[in-house]
Amino acid sequence: MTDFSLHERLDGDTLALCHSQTSLLRVMRDGRFAWLVLIPRRAGLADMVDLSTDEEARVMAELRAASLALRAATQCHKLNVASLGNMVRQLHIHIIARFEGDAAWPDPVWGSGEALPLDALPAWAEAVREALLAEGWQA
Amino acid sequence: MTDFSLHERLDGDTLALCHSQTSLLRVMRDGRFAWLVLIPRRAGLADMVDLSTDEEARVMAELRAASLALRAATQCHKLNVASLGNMVRQLHIHIIARFEGDAAWPDPVWGSGEALPLDALPAWAEAVREALLAEGWQA
Repeated sequence: MTDFSLHERLDGDTLALCHSQTSLLRVMRDGRFAWLVLIPRRAGLADMVDLSTDEEARVMAELRAASLALRAATQCHKLNVASLGNMVRQLHIHIIARFEGDAAWPDPVWGSGEALPLDALPAWAEAVREALLAEGWQA
Repeated sequence: MTDFSLHERLDGDTLALCHSQTSLLRVMRDGRFAWLVLIPRRAGLADMVDLSTDEEARVMAELRAASLALRAATQCHKLNVASLGNMVRQLHIHIIARFEGDAAWPDPVWGSGEALPLDALPAWAEAVREALLAEGWQA
């Protein structure tokens, strides 16, 4: 994890939620969606395949834990999970709770209208954090 | 894998490429992009977290193999990997080779303009298949 620093744009676009041994978990500053971003804390990662298989197993376990906590907190209809990184190359994985009829449904959330500014953690995010802290993540 | 059948829309939108023990690998019928779709062959799956942890490990190994073969075949700048499923609920994972300046860059490919019809496998897809068959996948 030496030399890792969160990309300036990811830092600006998200709020800190909690972290695991391997990754940061942050909340996208867009109040229209319940939208998490998982960022493995190693410098130089861009694609999922850049993770070693050991790292990938840890990241996938964290992705599963965060996804299940998000689904439980929001009772969403569908999860969207994606590693894109065309604008911010630093590896980051989106986990988004989707509802039929939400602001972008059924399209993907990226590029769909204007974000609704978010300056504090919403209740769903507090519930996700509480669930993950109970599993050993750290605030 | 009993009772699995490929969703009608996924079937129509893609061309068969090859399969593993766990999944189908298909090519999106859009000549603008080198775009694979990996579909785990079990009925009733919608989200990644619906996979058992054993299934997830197999699917992730296949996703890695397909991603590396796609990157090698296309020399792409970035991979986009996503499980969305807002329109077709059956679990399917997109793996897309992205290039600076491609038809959607830097936006995601979904909803970006009109597909360029594709009726036969392009050379990049043949190269991906050849690489995966050498690793034990089946035509």
